[in-house]
Amino acid sequence: MMMTLIYKMNRTNIFVLIVAMLMSGYSFAQSDQAKAVEDFKPASTNQLGKQFPQVNSEGRVRASISAPEATKVLFDIGGVKYELVKDANGVWTGDTNPQDEGFHYYQIWIDGAAVPDPNSVYFYGASRWGSGIEIPAKDQDFYSLKNVPHGQIREHIYFSKSNNAMRRCFVYTPPGYDKDVKKRYPVLYLQHGGGEDETGWASQGKTNLIMDNLIAEGKAKPFIIVMDNGTWRMPGQAAPPRPQDRAAGTWPPKGWADGFMKTLLEDIIPMIDADYRTIADQGHRAMAGLSMGGMQTRIITLANPDKFSHIGIFSGGSISMEDVNEAPAFKTKTKLLFVSYGSRELENRRSGMGGDPKANTEALQAAGINTHFYVSPLTAHEWQSWRRSLHEFAPLLFK
Amino acid sequence: MMMTLIYKMNRTNIFVLIVAMLMSGYSFAQSDQAKAVEDFKPASTNQLGKQFPQVNSEGRVRASISAPEATKVLFDIGGVKYELVKDANGVWTGDTNPQDEGFHYYQIWIDGAAVPDPNSVYFYGASRWGSGIEIPAKDQDFYSLKNVPHGQIREHIYFSKSNNAMRRCFVYTPPGYDKDVKKRYPVLYLQHGGGEDETGWASQGKTNLIMDNLIAEGKAKPFIIVMDNGTWRMPGQAAPPRPQDRAAGTWPPKGWADGFMKTLLEDIIPMIDADYRTIADQGHRAMAGLSMGGMQTRIITLANPDKFSHIGIFSGGSISMEDVNEAPAFKTKTKLLFVSYGSRELENRRSGMGGDPKANTEALQAAGINTHFYVSPLTAHEWQSWRRSLHEFAPLLFK
Repeated sequence: MMMTLIYKMNRTNIFVLIVAMLMSGYSFAQSDQAKAVEDFKPASTNQLGKQFPQVNSEGRVRASISAPEATKVLFDIGGVKYELVKDANGVWTGDTNPQDEGFHYYQIWIDGAAVPDPNSVYFYGASRWGSGIEIPAKDQDFYSLKNVPHGQIREHIYFSKSNNAMRRCFVYTPPGYDKDVKKRYPVLYLQHGGGEDETGWASQGKTNLIMDNLIAEGKAKPFIIVMDNGTWRMPGQAAPPRPQDRAAGTWPPKGWADGFMKTLLEDIIPMIDADYRTIADQGHRAMAGLSMGGMQTRIITLANPDKFSHIGIFSGGSISMEDVNEAPAFKTKTKLLFVSYGSRELENRRSGMGGDPKANTEALQAAGINTHFYVSPLTAHEWQSWRRSLHEFAPLLFK
Repeated sequence: MMMTLIYKMNRTNIFVLIVAMLMSGYSFAQSDQAKAVEDFKPASTNQLGKQFPQVNSEGRVRASISAPEATKVLFDIGGVKYELVKDANGVWTGDTNPQDEGFHYYQIWIDGAAVPDPNSVYFYGASRWGSGIEIPAKDQDFYSLKNVPHGQIREHIYFSKSNNAMRRCFVYTPPGYDKDVKKRYPVLYLQHGGGEDETGWASQGKTNLIMDNLIAEGKAKPFIIVMDNGTWRMPGQAAPPRPQDRAAGTWPPKGWADGFMKTLLEDIIPMIDADYRTIADQGHRAMAGLSMGGMQTRIITLANPDKFSHIGIFSGGSISMEDVNEAPAFKTKTKLLFVSYGSRELENRRSGMGGDPKANTEALQAAGINTHFYVSPLTAHEWQSWRRSLHEFAPLLFK
C-alpha cells in the first residue's frame, strides 16, 4: 500500500530517514510498501464488527476510512502522520511503520480536522477521549482475559471536602472479596499520568486482568487498588509544564502536588478505610503511579513515610540518597521502592526528576533500602511499560 | 448563524418545512438564524475543557469544529444533517433546530467521512461508540449528581456456559450495600435497546444517579440492578430486523429471544444470586428493558411467571389479554406490569409489538392485574423517555 511519512519528524529522525533511504536505494514509501508482511488482522481495540484498523506480525497498522469527498487523510500515531491513499470508492487506506508492542493513542486527520477513528473504541489520554490501538505483544498473556476468578472494578462516587466537589475513583476489589466478609486486605493507591484520568489504569492499563491473572497463578497476594484522579486541573495543583518551563528548570514548582496529596490523605484514604475491608496501617498501604503519577508518588511518599510502606515509580523519576537524607524516616519505614522505565525512555535519557534512576535506586539498595529497578524491553513512555511495571511490582507487595 | 437543513428528511417533514417557510415568508435558514436565543452554554456531555458543542434555552445545538481544508462539514442529529459554515480560520460552526430535552446520539460528517465529534464524550448506541449530547431538561434534577449517599456500578466479568464465552455485566449495588453485610436485596434485571450494550443504562441511562436520588428521598426501596448484554449478535439470537422484514411482518421470528433468555436464566440469575446478597425468589425479582430490551422482557416474563414478579416494558410493546390468556400463571403471579412510551412515539404510532399499548395495559388492569401506563412528555424513542420510565417504575417495585 502507498504510504508517505510526513510532519512532526525531528532533525535526528529526518537524518536517520535520509541515511536509510540512501542506503536502501529506494524512496522510503516504496521500500516500506514492499516490506509489509500480509498477515494483517483486525485490532483487538476495534469496535465490535469493525475490520479496520488492522495490525500485522511486524506491528504495522493498516488503517482504512471512508471519506469520499476528502482531499487529504492522515493516520497520526507515535508522533508521525502517515498519508493514506484514496481508492475509487472514496476509501482511504495506508500502512504505518512497525509500532512498539502494546497500546498507543492515535487520531485521524480529515482535511485538517483531527478526529477519533470511528472504527476504534476510545480511551482517555493526551487530555482527550480518543482512539487507541493494541499492538499484540509477545507477553500479552499476562493481561489477557481468561476464565479465572475475576475481581471487580467499582465506580465509587464521593464528596471531597478538600475539593468541595463530587469526585469519582475506581476501586479494584480482588476475586472473592464478597465471599469472605471477614477478610481484610492491603491497599495500593495507583495513579495515572499527565493528560490521563481515573479511567486509565482500569481501561488501557488492564489493571484488573493483570491482578486477576497474577492472583490465579498464586504470584501476587490479593489487595485492593484505588485509582483516583490526580489531574493537573485540581484545586491547589500547579499548571502543567510548558516546554520553556522544562527547559528553564523552573518546573515543577515547589508544592505542585499539594492538591492531590491533600485529597489523598484527607479524603480518599479515610474513605477507603471506612468503606472497604482494608488493613488500615502503613505496612499494608502502597502507592504507585506512572509518569506524573510517579512524580506525585515520589513527593507524597517521601513526605509521608508513616503512611506508605511500598512504593512504585513507573517512568516518573526516582528517589536519590539526597532525598532520603532529607526524609530520614523514609529509610527505616520503607519496605519496598520499585523504580521502572521503558527501555526506549532510557535510550532517550528521559529519566525525569532526580537524576539517573538506575544509579539512584542502586545507591538506595546499597544503603539498606529494599529496592527494585526494572526496565521494560523495547517500549517507550507508553502503557506497555506501565502494564509490565505493575505486573513486576504487584508480586513484591505486602510480602 | 448560517445553517441549512439537508438530507434524510422524509416527505412529511419536507411538506411541513415548506409550509412553515411559506407561512413565515423567509427561507428556513434565515428564519432559524434570526430566532436563535443567544444563551448558549457548553453541553454537559463535552470533554473536559471543551467549549463546543453548546446548547441554548431552546434546546438548539451550536456546533463548532476546526477543519481548515474541508469543503463540507455536517452536524448529524435526530435524523437531520445540518450544514456548518466555515470562517476565515477554518472553523466550521452552525446551529441546529431545537432538540427534545434529554440525551441524543449524533455524529459529524467531514467531506463524506462520518466521525465522532472530537469535543464530546462517547457512548455506545446505534451500534457504535460515538458522540452524544445532553439537552438540559426541566426535570433533570432526578438524574443529577448530588451529594447524597451513592451506590456503586461494578464491572462484573464472568464465564457463561451457555455462550461458552467470557461476558460482562454491570451491577448497581445500592448505597450502604457494603455496610450491613447481613442485609439482602431484591434484584432488577434491566436491559438496553437494539444497537446498544451493557454500558447504556449505567452511562447515558444514569441508572445509578436516578436510584441514588430516589433512595435518598425515600421514594424507592434499595435494590440491586443487573445490566447485561442482550445484543442481537448473541448465539441463538435472531438477526436484527431489516426494513423489509418489519414491513412484511415477518420479524421477529419465533424464538428470537431464546439466546438471551437462556443466558439470563441459566447463567446470569444463578450467578447474581450466588455472588450478591439477593432475595432469591420470584417476589423479589424484576425484569425491565427498553425497546429491544422491552421486547425481550415481554417474552421472557410471559414464559417465566414463576421467575419474575415485577415487569417493566419501556418503548418495547405491551402485553395483551391474548398474551395473558396463553400464559395463565402470569395473571396470578405478576405483581406489577409497567408499560411506557415517549409521547412522540405514540403520536407517530410507534407502538411496537402487541397492539395499542395503552388499551392493552388498561384491559389487563380491568382483568385484575396491577398495571401502570406512563407517557414521557415530549420525548421520542430516546433515553429521556427511558430515564423517566425508570424513575416512575423504580418506586413501584417490591412494595
